[in-house]
Amino acid sequence: MSKSMKWTGNTLEILDQTKLPLVKDYVICKDYRDVRDAIQGMKVRGAPAIGVSAAYGMVLAAYECKDKVDTRDEFLKCLDNAACYLISARPTAVNLEWAVRRMMDKAREIEDFAKIPSTLAELAEEIEQEDVDTCMKIGEHGAKLLPSRATVLTHCNAGALATAGYGTALGVVRAAIEEGKEIQVFAGETRPFLQGARLTAFELMEDNIPVTLITDNMAAYVMSQGLIDCVIVGADRIAANGDVANKIGTYGLAVLASEHDIPFYVAAPLSTFDFSIQSGKEIVIEERDEDEVATIFGQRIAPEGVRIINPAFDVTPHSYITAIITDCGVIHSPSTERLKGIAPV
Amino acid sequence: MSKSMKWTGNTLEILDQTKLPLVKDYVICKDYRDVRDAIQGMKVRGAPAIGVSAAYGMVLAAYECKDKVDTRDEFLKCLDNAACYLISARPTAVNLEWAVRRMMDKAREIEDFAKIPSTLAELAEEIEQEDVDTCMKIGEHGAKLLPSRATVLTHCNAGALATAGYGTALGVVRAAIEEGKEIQVFAGETRPFLQGARLTAFELMEDNIPVTLITDNMAAYVMSQGLIDCVIVGADRIAANGDVANKIGTYGLAVLASEHDIPFYVAAPLSTFDFSIQSGKEIVIEERDEDEVATIFGQRIAPEGVRIINPAFDVTPHSYITAIITDCGVIHSPSTERLKGIAPV
Repeated sequence: MSKSMKWTGNTLEILDQTKLPLVKDYVICKDYRDVRDAIQGMKVRGAPAIGVSAAYGMVLAAYECKDKVDTRDEFLKCLDNAACYLISARPTAVNLEWAVRRMMDKAREIEDFAKIPSTLAELAEEIEQEDVDTCMKIGEHGAKLLPSRATVLTHCNAGALATAGYGTALGVVRAAIEEGKEIQVFAGETRPFLQGARLTAFELMEDNIPVTLITDNMAAYVMSQGLIDCVIVGADRIAANGDVANKIGTYGLAVLASEHDIPFYVAAPLSTFDFSIQSGKEIVIEERDEDEVATIFGQRIAPEGVRIINPAFDVTPHSYITAIITDCGVIHSPSTERLKGIAPV
Repeated sequence: MSKSMKWTGNTLEILDQTKLPLVKDYVICKDYRDVRDAIQGMKVRGAPAIGVSAAYGMVLAAYECKDKVDTRDEFLKCLDNAACYLISARPTAVNLEWAVRRMMDKAREIEDFAKIPSTLAELAEEIEQEDVDTCMKIGEHGAKLLPSRATVLTHCNAGALATAGYGTALGVVRAAIEEGKEIQVFAGETRPFLQGARLTAFELMEDNIPVTLITDNMAAYVMSQGLIDCVIVGADRIAANGDVANKIGTYGLAVLASEHDIPFYVAAPLSTFDFSIQSGKEIVIEERDEDEVATIFGQRIAPEGVRIINPAFDVTPHSYITAIITDCGVIHSPSTERLKGIAPV
């Protein structure tokens, strides 16, 4: 299993996911600006992986600030600027802001600002390890939902590459296989960025998990042919009522699954829940560059000058979701009422 | 408006749609084998355009057979071989077989076999002109269904490029605009072959019709945002009960349209109906080469060795279809009962 990132102590090496599966190349981030660029340019992607890499970005920022300033106040101001800059990289995934704020809160707790960088480095490593542990717990809870033989349709990449390791949606697949279940995966290619074709297929093949690649518009067909037993996807932000923002195309799959009486599961850590928003309507949907649609690996596929929209996410209303699989258990038929139990007070 | 093909009297020039929109190049078909290759390789595609080009393929075959044989029987046998070879190019579109059989039937009517080639040439030109006329009639009937301002979502290319001219689904758009209605189009890119991105966008821009390109998996999102007033697609084969085989992804759009209370229209000539099959379950779905999914313009996008399926079509059950727009009028809520009126006795 390839790791999405490696912390070396003074740099963060990020697996460049824009080049997979053709080239396996790590970019070396020497400061938080490099990390921000890697997040913004989707070299690292997937809500949990973005969170972990941003935490390391804060460590790099802390070392840089320490060299620049003389007082604790100046240090915190410097670090806060870096925090805002990192958070601005992508608006939809809640884990980015969650990880950066957690780092910032920790920094504020420490009196001697010279000690902040090393403390933050420890916390970032803790967040990274937590993320792997969290994925394994999600896997454990989710595996129980799968029959002993099943074909899982997934979208985008909610795998090891989208996290610090193991994966959320693909963590459920991995855990079920470890339990001895016979699981195979259908991966939607996930235009425009092709995370399914490039990353999910790559990651599953690395682990010898059977995978079949389809274009996104084949999903309804394979469902109608009885080929799919359940859909499992990840999430970038989950509102207090259980509405889920995830990669563009997720909402369509949820509607199709419902029409074909196929269970639709979302696998995500508790850190993906945003109880500050009541419903998915409040979630900001990132609009990305037209070129991601108009070109593929630099090859133009559409006429010059054509109007294009490129929303990176959509929102699936909770009514279409059979269950949300979290690190703390499974929430069946999610709703505001059901989610209250896990909300922080 | 670019023409999908040009008959020169002794060759058929086919616009190579695999190269659009980057290069506008006509391939010269000197015999029926060239025509068959162009159909099979999707240089010409779209059920009506395939039918017309196959008709010209039969003309080329007739001239070739005439030079080869001495008797009428030998001639018809030679022509029948060519007919079978042409029909075998693609299995799903009914128009291919329909056009070739019509040519063959005409050949059999003629006593003096030396006269067959020129007679077939006249008939092919007639079929070509009929196709344009048919599209204009479809446009006329369909335009009445559109409000004075509307955004139409279409899939694949059911336009001038898919026919001898004007188009079926896009014929409805053209006719509505000619009537003074304000129509804009959202075009799904239509993976794997990208007919939407490459052909529909190209063709509409050539005619200054406003078009917005989306990836296929954005359809549910744009519907949920209230951006789409109706869906109009073409058809490759329609069963006696109104089930429609069309480009992969069509069925999913029909389900999504139904969920969002958006009318879902199919625009197709009567020649697309196949009354020999009772329902869509009997329609053969062409499985095409994996490379169409794994590569885009020759650029590999998926890991080597990954399992891929590539069904070129799917079947939309008639219950999801608001109406079928034909050259002979509109069939609302299509069903076996409703279609009986137009069935040949």
